[in-house]
Amino acid sequence: MTAMSTKKMWAVVAGVGPGTGASVARTFAKTYTVALLARNPANYEPLVKEIQATGSKAVGISTDTSDGSSVIAAFEKLMSEEGFDGHLAAAVYNVGGKFIRKSFLELSQDEFEMGWQTNGLGGYHFSQAVLPLLLETEKASPQFPPTLIFTSATAAIRGGANFASFATGKFAMRALSQSLAREFGPKSIHVVHAIIDGIIDIERTKEWKVDAPDGKISPQAIADAYWHLHSQPRTSFTYEFDIRPYAERW
Amino acid sequence: MTAMSTKKMWAVVAGVGPGTGASVARTFAKTYTVALLARNPANYEPLVKEIQATGSKAVGISTDTSDGSSVIAAFEKLMSEEGFDGHLAAAVYNVGGKFIRKSFLELSQDEFEMGWQTNGLGGYHFSQAVLPLLLETEKASPQFPPTLIFTSATAAIRGGANFASFATGKFAMRALSQSLAREFGPKSIHVVHAIIDGIIDIERTKEWKVDAPDGKISPQAIADAYWHLHSQPRTSFTYEFDIRPYAERW
Amino acid sequence: MTAMSTKKMWAVVAGVGPGTGASVARTFAKTYTVALLARNPANYEPLVKEIQATGSKAVGISTDTSDGSSVIAAFEKLMSEEGFDGHLAAAVYNVGGKFIRKSFLELSQDEFEMGWQTNGLGGYHFSQAVLPLLLETEKASPQFPPTLIFTSATAAIRGGANFASFATGKFAMRALSQSLAREFGPKSIHVVHAIIDGIIDIERTKEWKVDAPDGKISPQAIADAYWHLHSQPRTSFTYEFDIRPYAERW
Amino acid sequence: MTAMSTKKMWAVVAGVGPGTGASVARTFAKTYTVALLARNPANYEPLVKEIQATGSKAVGISTDTSDGSSVIAAFEKLMSEEGFDGHLAAAVYNVGGKFIRKSFLELSQDEFEMGWQTNGLGGYHFSQAVLPLLLETEKASPQFPPTLIFTSATAAIRGGANFASFATGKFAMRALSQSLAREFGPKSIHVVHAIIDGIIDIERTKEWKVDAPDGKISPQAIADAYWHLHSQPRTSFTYEFDIRPYAERW
Repeated sequence: MTAMSTKKMWAVVAGVGPGTGASVARTFAKTYTVALLARNPANYEPLVKEIQATGSKAVGISTDTSDGSSVIAAFEKLMSEEGFDGHLAAAVYNVGGKFIRKSFLELSQDEFEMGWQTNGLGGYHFSQAVLPLLLETEKASPQFPPTLIFTSATAAIRGGANFASFATGKFAMRALSQSLAREFGPKSIHVVHAIIDGIIDIERTKEWKVDAPDGKISPQAIADAYWHLHSQPRTSFTYEFDIRPYAERW
Repeated sequence: MTAMSTKKMWAVVAGVGPGTGASVARTFAKTYTVALLARNPANYEPLVKEIQATGSKAVGISTDTSDGSSVIAAFEKLMSEEGFDGHLAAAVYNVGGKFIRKSFLELSQDEFEMGWQTNGLGGYHFSQAVLPLLLETEKASPQFPPTLIFTSATAAIRGGANFASFATGKFAMRALSQSLAREFGPKSIHVVHAIIDGIIDIERTKEWKVDAPDGKISPQAIADAYWHLHSQPRTSFTYEFDIRPYAERW
Repeated sequence: MTAMSTKKMWAVVAGVGPGTGASVARTFAKTYTVALLARNPANYEPLVKEIQATGSKAVGISTDTSDGSSVIAAFEKLMSEEGFDGHLAAAVYNVGGKFIRKSFLELSQDEFEMGWQTNGLGGYHFSQAVLPLLLETEKASPQFPPTLIFTSATAAIRGGANFASFATGKFAMRALSQSLAREFGPKSIHVVHAIIDGIIDIERTKEWKVDAPDGKISPQAIADAYWHLHSQPRTSFTYEFDIRPYAERW
Repeated sequence: MTAMSTKKMWAVVAGVGPGTGASVARTFAKTYTVALLARNPANYEPLVKEIQATGSKAVGISTDTSDGSSVIAAFEKLMSEEGFDGHLAAAVYNVGGKFIRKSFLELSQDEFEMGWQTNGLGGYHFSQAVLPLLLETEKASPQFPPTLIFTSATAAIRGGANFASFATGKFAMRALSQSLAREFGPKSIHVVHAIIDGIIDIERTKEWKVDAPDGKISPQAIADAYWHLHSQPRTSFTYEFDIRPYAERW
């Protein structure tokens, strides 16, 4: 049993907080050992304990995905984990970053670049780290095609006044994921760009008003969708889909 | 038990043939009684028998979805079915129609209009019939939000040389589904536009060559995706997604 | 001089009313003899007189573009016009049709089909009539590549609640124009899809309120854009562009 | 006369080389004094002389648009130019950058970031410099609305295998230009995203083979389109358009 469980494949979730990342981690932890990445350990520590309490294994690694050396160090640590033999079944890039809403002429270079740092450059570092592992896993006849999912937003397809930082970052994330899907899809790697459009229903947003009941997105529903996509056979890959509350205007 | 099963909610699938429609019907028949619509009874009869053999109920109704009176007659027949009390949990419009590939100047008006008849007008008739039932079902606190899914194609987002008939039809289908999603989404009806991009792996396409192994779409994978979408809570609706083989160029 | 002017190439504008069509006709009449098509002669008669008063030639032909035989009759009439030898330099499809805004379940089949009749089927009939002439003209080394322009709308790329009729029509128009651009572009025919997004500034809309000064689209600016596009060499075709007032939200 | 000409408004073109930038500069120099920015003076010096030889004024300023301090220095230099009183009628961002085509796993961080540096960050620096001047110009009742044009590419709407660097940069450029169009459009500033899809016909590409005669884009045709867009009244702004050779597959 122990031998078995240490031989389980792994999934890595970058950007674990109280919302989407945590639900995705819980969901994937039912099948895989999970590695949880976040800049601040406070964001993954309770979740690691929670998952371990269910009898599954989970590890947390402090990582700044916008910093290449931090990502390299995180994956070196991951490689040294007991039970990890390089077989990564799924990787989810869910790093949100700071959301900046500001008139363009008041936007400093640092603020402008934050969108890119998180969504473009961070996506690059994460993809550079996980793709070799996913390709290796593919050779091991995994149950499902190795999967790389990017959590994105409507700002990936629509720029807006005061959104230059976030939109450039999310557009870049979509370009990255399309480029990866077209290069690694034919190698049986499933790359997904998920447009999440609305407020996530978590503790922090409890007081935020929306127009209708059930007007916020369930993080568990996102996790269920990610798992469904991960389970698709390579005959039938979904590249892009959207999730939004029924009452959302779009 | 019998009483219970006759009270089951129903699902209707229009455009049942050997591929997507049949797989969707089988999948939804695990939970719902299914009504199968096709112009030619030969397309649904074996499937009705197959599903009934599993102990589920299924009915077939000969329908020409491009003809309003035929659709009205089909739903009158459905309303008279034992066990159907108007509660429709899901409706799938999967009518393919004849695919015409022809230089524009050789395309007759009848040929040009076929794309519209099947995808635009047929979608209108089907939606007119099912939406009142879906709205009624919504009041009955169903397990999942009532769902209307359109099976579409890449031609819904890209016109091409020699594709004027098919592309105008599929673009119109996408316009219809977007309009319905924006009108009926806020009423808790889940409308989905599914872009299926590739050859469906069925008996008829067995000899069709593709560039790679597993290069054709699994109809069961489509059905699994449709079921997943149907199961989404109203907090988290997917409106549009694509499915294509891993090796497909797009 | 007279001999020369009767040998001028022609342009045809379908859908001539008080707005875009009239401005396009006036603009193209500076270079070409113009044929003006509208269902109701009252829509082109004053314009024919106005253009003739400037010394140019213009003819009006009553045509219902959604009716194939009406379009065929119109072009037979055109072929018999003095001075027309089949050389058509430009064709503009600017037929608006009746705009229907209605909840889907209150939309009759006739109302639903109006969008298609005008934008899809009408576009088919017009294109069938003009493309052979444009192809013939191309052999005659015209100053500019023969051009076919469709006046479209934002509804060509976005469906909306209560817009099922208009949106299906405009989506179909976009599919048609893309298919034609991809088939006839390589034959040096310039096909353009013009997304006009806003209220046209004409007598009929004078009282319509908008949020800002200059908030309505100038029909002459549309005509100038159409002429600019017509003047593009075949090395450098624009297929799609949008026009909207500076203050429009989009 | 001299007084008049020193009072002419200015246009600035960033990214002046032998192709699009030079043609745009020549075209705008017929109406405005032009400032030509390029990293390497060899790229603008012959053009400055050529324009001056026609009796117009032109200045060249060595600038690295991906470096904020270099852009600031360039505009300080511009402000000190005789005859420049801050009235900028048009600004064209035409910086191409190095085009990298490489498998993602062979792409270094520096290579990956080049696309962003040139198209995203460079666009930010340029926009920060020109928008205050364009807004100021708008108050001076210029003949045409002040205009900011971004030269972009098909890679702005489509990522591809081996194109991660270029595509992330161009997607980001599109996000930036959309965000600016939506923020500054209502202030009467005309922001344009130009999708140029094909090989530009210049000396350097003379030997590049294409499938058809006239198969490369004329830089003068791009310049003519830019001028046409600049001349649009604020009632009728084009935000996005494409240019491609008639024979290009798209």
